[in-house]
Amino acid sequence: MALAIISPGRDVRLWIENFKELDPEIDIQVYPEITDPEKVEAVALWNHPKGMLSDFPNLKLICSMGAGVDHILSDNSIQKDIPITRIIDDKLTTSMTNYVVMGVLNYHRQINRYQEDQKNKVWDMSNPEIPVTVGIMGVGELGGDIAEKLQQLRFDVVGYGNTHKENMKYPYFFGDEIHKFLSKINILVCMLPLTPKTEGILNLNLFRKCNKNTYLVNVARGKHLVEEDLLEAIDEGYISGALLDVFQKEPLPEEHPFWNKNEITITPHIASVTNPKAAAPQIIENYHRIKKSQPFINQINPKRGY
Amino acid sequence: MALAIISPGRDVRLWIENFKELDPEIDIQVYPEITDPEKVEAVALWNHPKGMLSDFPNLKLICSMGAGVDHILSDNSIQKDIPITRIIDDKLTTSMTNYVVMGVLNYHRQINRYQEDQKNKVWDMSNPEIPVTVGIMGVGELGGDIAEKLQQLRFDVVGYGNTHKENMKYPYFFGDEIHKFLSKINILVCMLPLTPKTEGILNLNLFRKCNKNTYLVNVARGKHLVEEDLLEAIDEGYISGALLDVFQKEPLPEEHPFWNKNEITITPHIASVTNPKAAAPQIIENYHRIKKSQPFINQINPKRGY
Repeated sequence: MALAIISPGRDVRLWIENFKELDPEIDIQVYPEITDPEKVEAVALWNHPKGMLSDFPNLKLICSMGAGVDHILSDNSIQKDIPITRIIDDKLTTSMTNYVVMGVLNYHRQINRYQEDQKNKVWDMSNPEIPVTVGIMGVGELGGDIAEKLQQLRFDVVGYGNTHKENMKYPYFFGDEIHKFLSKINILVCMLPLTPKTEGILNLNLFRKCNKNTYLVNVARGKHLVEEDLLEAIDEGYISGALLDVFQKEPLPEEHPFWNKNEITITPHIASVTNPKAAAPQIIENYHRIKKSQPFINQINPKRGY
Repeated sequence: MALAIISPGRDVRLWIENFKELDPEIDIQVYPEITDPEKVEAVALWNHPKGMLSDFPNLKLICSMGAGVDHILSDNSIQKDIPITRIIDDKLTTSMTNYVVMGVLNYHRQINRYQEDQKNKVWDMSNPEIPVTVGIMGVGELGGDIAEKLQQLRFDVVGYGNTHKENMKYPYFFGDEIHKFLSKINILVCMLPLTPKTEGILNLNLFRKCNKNTYLVNVARGKHLVEEDLLEAIDEGYISGALLDVFQKEPLPEEHPFWNKNEITITPHIASVTNPKAAAPQIIENYHRIKKSQPFINQINPKRGY
């Protein structure tokens, strides 16, 4: 019985260290040096080469090394009956929330304006706050925490999601109520999981339903956003600017127009970084549950996509 | 019986509107057009010309138009037995807290670094967060709210104040324990009231007790900070940078070195602006209490200074 780590291009030493600390006996094989594929019963994955899981005839569990599983579900070659789990990590939630709160506060308190004023030695006390209502698309584990923290900071929050939800502590819209949702807000935060249904959801058609001067924060996945549509929506005045942490192609190509667009602030996919110390115990716990035939923790529903 | 408004250089029309809405019969006299000084029994003040209150022989109440009263207590010509009140305003607390939280998040998540990287088209995912512990000097009405909100965002918080306090939800130091307090933190937020004891408290002697690379946020009063000492402390490496909303002289003079100092972000005294809608009822309520000889709300203790 072995666990394979498949995360091309990333340094996985900290992961190995944490796995071994939790289970000193564990047999770990690290891609691309996998010597005994038939021994592998579980894989820990991040952006694996599509199609390669068929190398493992005895695979019983697929663990995402992060909160998202779109990189797994988009691999059609994977057998549909193998359970998939993801990471739920307080630290990951914390840093995601704090990143979004930072984006909301910087827009609300106009940090860019004051930085510009400082450069020009301008002392202008007028209109110190832009009144905001924050709309969060996707109020699950991560988006729900953002909504809660923003409310504690006394912001008005509105939620939107795919499914009906009861007993929400803020106005909530779902499904085809997107128009209503967008009419109530002027900051739009995308926290949706990436599924065939949500891919490209941030497009010109949606932006044109927004209030003029809506600010966009995308920390979910680059593929949620049709990037040229954002530029168009900024030109048309529907979107006043954006804070983006994720992109269609990462690293963002050098010739990409976002680098030089004044209204857009970009960060290099650092809103939330999975912490191996918190994530490793969840993967090891599930790895042990294979033998004990126990239900897995943090298992996702592949039909729903998260 | 009349109320005088003395707030030179500021537009007070919104204040007058709110006062009249609450008490349509009220006799309001606005500096410098005060026609019947002997009728004035209460004054609403912000940065009044020192010494001028002796013009009012029947003065029974002095109301600060903001949260601070240092502008009143520093006028030695004022009779010591006249009660002084201040404004306590949720909105004022909210915007002060959100400003400080913004400063903490921008330092923790290194927004300046990413803005610089964007300018230079650099994609650098390494070390996305600076670990921080936030020290708050002054954990009263405003500082206490900041501490609470930062803890909700899962930051480590340490408090410091003038007096002993019980049952604090975070480590708290007071009086001569400043050295201990400073040793535990790497973001220093000044929320102290301005008193003869706290004037100039942010000086080189204090900065040299800080951990190297401590970040400073001053949203209290300009006079808390010895401005040339901050530049020296940055050069010596004790202070890594600062977010400043208040200054010794406001507007900040054009030749002031802060404008061009890379490590310093300045805003034009907008962290928290008193909202007349919320403040006016407190002043009118106290104005009415003069006649009814009732105790005033939000009265300060002049010996303590707040």
